[in-house]
Amino acid sequence: MIIIMSSETGEAQIKAVVDRLAAMGLDSNVSQGVERTVIGAIGDENKIDKESIQALPGVEDVIRVMKPYKIVARSFHKGDSVVDIKGIKLGGNQIQVIAGPCSVETQEQMNLAAQGVADAGCRLMRGGAFKPRTSPYSFQGKGEEGLTLFRNAAEKHNLPIVTELMDVRMLDTFMEHDVDVIQIGTRNMQNFDLLKEVGRIKKPVILKRGMSATISEWLMAAEYIAAGGNHDIIFCERGVRSFETYYRNVLDVTAIPVLKKETHLPVIVDPSHAGGKAWMVPALSRAAIAAGADGLLVEMHPNPCEAWCDADQALTPQELKDLMGELKGIAQVIGRDI
Amino acid sequence: MIIIMSSETGEAQIKAVVDRLAAMGLDSNVSQGVERTVIGAIGDENKIDKESIQALPGVEDVIRVMKPYKIVARSFHKGDSVVDIKGIKLGGNQIQVIAGPCSVETQEQMNLAAQGVADAGCRLMRGGAFKPRTSPYSFQGKGEEGLTLFRNAAEKHNLPIVTELMDVRMLDTFMEHDVDVIQIGTRNMQNFDLLKEVGRIKKPVILKRGMSATISEWLMAAEYIAAGGNHDIIFCERGVRSFETYYRNVLDVTAIPVLKKETHLPVIVDPSHAGGKAWMVPALSRAAIAAGADGLLVEMHPNPCEAWCDADQALTPQELKDLMGELKGIAQVIGRDI
Amino acid sequence: MIIIMSSETGEAQIKAVVDRLAAMGLDSNVSQGVERTVIGAIGDENKIDKESIQALPGVEDVIRVMKPYKIVARSFHKGDSVVDIKGIKLGGNQIQVIAGPCSVETQEQMNLAAQGVADAGCRLMRGGAFKPRTSPYSFQGKGEEGLTLFRNAAEKHNLPIVTELMDVRMLDTFMEHDVDVIQIGTRNMQNFDLLKEVGRIKKPVILKRGMSATISEWLMAAEYIAAGGNHDIIFCERGVRSFETYYRNVLDVTAIPVLKKETHLPVIVDPSHAGGKAWMVPALSRAAIAAGADGLLVEMHPNPCEAWCDADQALTPQELKDLMGELKGIAQVIGRDI
Amino acid sequence: MIIIMSSETGEAQIKAVVDRLAAMGLDSNVSQGVERTVIGAIGDENKIDKESIQALPGVEDVIRVMKPYKIVARSFHKGDSVVDIKGIKLGGNQIQVIAGPCSVETQEQMNLAAQGVADAGCRLMRGGAFKPRTSPYSFQGKGEEGLTLFRNAAEKHNLPIVTELMDVRMLDTFMEHDVDVIQIGTRNMQNFDLLKEVGRIKKPVILKRGMSATISEWLMAAEYIAAGGNHDIIFCERGVRSFETYYRNVLDVTAIPVLKKETHLPVIVDPSHAGGKAWMVPALSRAAIAAGADGLLVEMHPNPCEAWCDADQALTPQELKDLMGELKGIAQVIGRDI
Repeated sequence: MIIIMSSETGEAQIKAVVDRLAAMGLDSNVSQGVERTVIGAIGDENKIDKESIQALPGVEDVIRVMKPYKIVARSFHKGDSVVDIKGIKLGGNQIQVIAGPCSVETQEQMNLAAQGVADAGCRLMRGGAFKPRTSPYSFQGKGEEGLTLFRNAAEKHNLPIVTELMDVRMLDTFMEHDVDVIQIGTRNMQNFDLLKEVGRIKKPVILKRGMSATISEWLMAAEYIAAGGNHDIIFCERGVRSFETYYRNVLDVTAIPVLKKETHLPVIVDPSHAGGKAWMVPALSRAAIAAGADGLLVEMHPNPCEAWCDADQALTPQELKDLMGELKGIAQVIGRDI
Repeated sequence: MIIIMSSETGEAQIKAVVDRLAAMGLDSNVSQGVERTVIGAIGDENKIDKESIQALPGVEDVIRVMKPYKIVARSFHKGDSVVDIKGIKLGGNQIQVIAGPCSVETQEQMNLAAQGVADAGCRLMRGGAFKPRTSPYSFQGKGEEGLTLFRNAAEKHNLPIVTELMDVRMLDTFMEHDVDVIQIGTRNMQNFDLLKEVGRIKKPVILKRGMSATISEWLMAAEYIAAGGNHDIIFCERGVRSFETYYRNVLDVTAIPVLKKETHLPVIVDPSHAGGKAWMVPALSRAAIAAGADGLLVEMHPNPCEAWCDADQALTPQELKDLMGELKGIAQVIGRDI
Repeated sequence: MIIIMSSETGEAQIKAVVDRLAAMGLDSNVSQGVERTVIGAIGDENKIDKESIQALPGVEDVIRVMKPYKIVARSFHKGDSVVDIKGIKLGGNQIQVIAGPCSVETQEQMNLAAQGVADAGCRLMRGGAFKPRTSPYSFQGKGEEGLTLFRNAAEKHNLPIVTELMDVRMLDTFMEHDVDVIQIGTRNMQNFDLLKEVGRIKKPVILKRGMSATISEWLMAAEYIAAGGNHDIIFCERGVRSFETYYRNVLDVTAIPVLKKETHLPVIVDPSHAGGKAWMVPALSRAAIAAGADGLLVEMHPNPCEAWCDADQALTPQELKDLMGELKGIAQVIGRDI
Repeated sequence: MIIIMSSETGEAQIKAVVDRLAAMGLDSNVSQGVERTVIGAIGDENKIDKESIQALPGVEDVIRVMKPYKIVARSFHKGDSVVDIKGIKLGGNQIQVIAGPCSVETQEQMNLAAQGVADAGCRLMRGGAFKPRTSPYSFQGKGEEGLTLFRNAAEKHNLPIVTELMDVRMLDTFMEHDVDVIQIGTRNMQNFDLLKEVGRIKKPVILKRGMSATISEWLMAAEYIAAGGNHDIIFCERGVRSFETYYRNVLDVTAIPVLKKETHLPVIVDPSHAGGKAWMVPALSRAAIAAGADGLLVEMHPNPCEAWCDADQALTPQELKDLMGELKGIAQVIGRDI
């Protein structure tokens, strides 16, 4: 940790900082510059509360030099971590496209969707039984019944299922239904109690990025899960909020190489929620894979115009199939398969 | 709802939209313009899923003309709603400053804090027993014990207590401790299950704005609470995320007159989390009151440098007292008291 | 144009709007809904000043239904426009990578850079003689002398030159030096007098996106150039400002398919300024091409560590060569060459 | 300057950094921490190009400890600088409200406007003769004729005039018309050639904040003017771009106390462009003055509904008068007059 003193700081204030650091078990390196004094704290900076140093008289700025995340950090595990989902590997050489409808509606819809997912060559299926809707008056999802419909449809094609958990009280139900991958949505990225609970179980977790979360906050949210013992975490970039109104969010492709540098965990991209329109999905999907993503989370509906939510962003089964073809080519160029 | 068709739309596509609207029970007003056709849907637009219309062929844009919020809307209740907190009115002519430390630490700290709150002339006290921290390795709050320490300190001065609820499973505990005002934090503004639960109880709720929530999303989050039957909701503006790194968030003062226009519910401001530095708090507090806020949520600690979290943004008891003096003058200018 | 009246509007206010529209030569379609009245203005909405309607009593919102841009709009020219730069086509099937140093420094540096550009198989060269620097005390570019050094180096390899024009008074100098492509930088995207001037000449213009410009503002800035008669405009996405501090800007890949839909003009991407670090450039470049960009604007320096500006974001000549290899594969997958 | 080396850095890389600093005339303080090595550069860090250090192998981050701005910095001039505009002081105890229409339209309109400005008790008048419009097809201002109309109207009431300069080639014209205060608009905040030119003259300059400019960039833009010799600079906060669509920009009140700390120069606020609606102006104006602004730049039109631009954000003469009354009270509370 580096403490930058303001330009008019006197000896007493410098001493007070050094004493405070010493009380916390850290040594100090005081460097008197031309304009200001800089104090380097030597030792484990995670012992220090940055704000409490910041609050001391004469302190202008406090800068951390160590990463706040540990288990999820690339330095914790040099190689790429591969998450195993019932034998399907995510994070390795093979790219995984997780496809399916925004929400579970009926058994027939789910059966058709599962068929479409399998036909396109995807190996994992998504679908929401509990939906986080902006309005309390909108369809809130089929609930537990949706999990049953989903499982019925998916198992005919041996597709592991991915679905969102919103309420910590539903975790037991998710375990009873043996949900294969638990998704933590954008609005819950910093629902710390929920993160702690999924950290205690043995199920892969997809952690979506918060609406305007920094990379560091996102890594720290994953650290909450990892700290509980569950290291099977998959980051999912889904765009961040911006001033642009043409599309729903700005897909942050830069986050892909950055996460690959900072963490050993897999990174996937949701092009559907990022753009918010089906016609943008192919371009965004190609970009994500080209930038190094380990997979995608894509919305597909057997009949988009009839979808109960987000109808305008779902691909048709045929469009998904075509997209898989395009992605195959890009995967090969960067030495991967799909 | 207005449906704008793309410029090359044909008769069949227009008819399909009109038919879809009719199936939902809405009439259509088709207006053939020079460049494009515009369809006005006449009837209750809340019956229609915007995205499902958006997904129809030839539709370029769909625009709502009705507000999505109902109970919280100004049109639902023309006058200003006043929330009664054990006899203290929030939202009326008297401005309320809710002060106290970021987190509950010890009985002694809370006693000194409560003394400072009362001495400054504030009528409500804040303090966190459960803390949403970015890092799982940071102090997470005293938990339930904190509620006891808080109540002990506050009741000597007859100060109702305001504290944050993060986990829906802790609601019963909050009720047992008879917490006077439940705060829903920034990270939980769209934790819909939590909102639904506090919508079922009879306790005032302070709903903080999400990190980058729009005014509309914020009003809809309040609608979740209101829809459950609890109309005692207080909005708390606490700054939104921006590109500026000099301060933590941009305090959005414009949100104050906008909320006053859109909703009948009280609006308060948290200048401490907005700026993130104690020295910014007086200027931001004056601005908030001058812009029409009904109150403030301010951090004060008996000894900021020793605070266990957010040490750099807490006022001292004396600074709080001085601030109350300044605010009194501004309140008078705009015809209110404090 | 659609005018949404507030819910309490009376007959007189509606009439006033209709009369105002009539005075401007537009017909009205009044649609009385359940909650509010909506007025559709029929005729050329570009004759109407949106704000003057917005200011009328009882008007709640005014929504344009026509695009404000004309010449640059896809509807103006259905096919893709191809810009010809001394025989090199930009916007056609062949992807163009424009490479070179951030700033012109010395003849030797430029000679080595030009050699590197040609060796990598690029056909156009970039280099800044006039530099927009945040600080008045930083190196401001070599000025006119830089144009000479640049031309000397580039012509040995028959590379047309691309360089930034900041000051409208330097346009004659640029013409004398026969600069092949004029770049309008991010900070000047809405320097309307500069746009008007480059609209009057016969030289291709690269128009970089403003720091936080919307797609619509960017298209309108291009419309300023086009309105003057110069239709050889190339859009250059270079990232938009965000809250993230890990990288300089968020590269907005979604802008690529959106521009391809809205305009017939070519779109290129600057991955160097977007990420701000050389190690991010390959991933961002691959993403841009995969998403459909017609080219790139990449920083390369013969010796990055010695560069006079933006040293940390320049590729080495070898890295550029390797990148070109990767991009070749991606181009083929999407049916293009490079 | 502090250089943070990455955790795997070896001796050779550290030596390379130290050598590079030595070559630039700076000493080094090498501090070997538990996880990483930190190098403090001792000497004038403005001699060093941050990026060139950043580009060296093993360097993870480079942090400046000195402010990049000099003349505009509070440390350059401890007291508040007061700008004298024909005897009217801006930046002292008296608050100045600069009012007038968005654009100069006719002599009659300007006469009525000037009357309204004087009647309300304002001492300075604003009005645009050259307008930066998003569309090339919108009214672009009356041009030079507008300056004459403006002067005619203002001089009857002895009101110094404030107007925007967009094109560096018009500076001589502005000098001939003896414009009293030159305004540099949002879109030109980083038009460095324009800043350099107004730095060479002896006229006060109002420098509006860029659409999404950081405080530091804004101070550096002012430094461009100051470096040329013109120290009569007034900062004008006018809101920054955000994701919110309800209002045009987020008025950044926090910028007021921050600028007051960082610079000795006056700070004013434009509440009209910030909110974009006339009904928001009173609340924003009160907030700005309460937060410590030295003045306001407010749009007022004798007949807003007939205004040629930004009709929806102009106050009427009576509304301006009423606002001045409210502001008088707030000014008194904070020990100022108006």
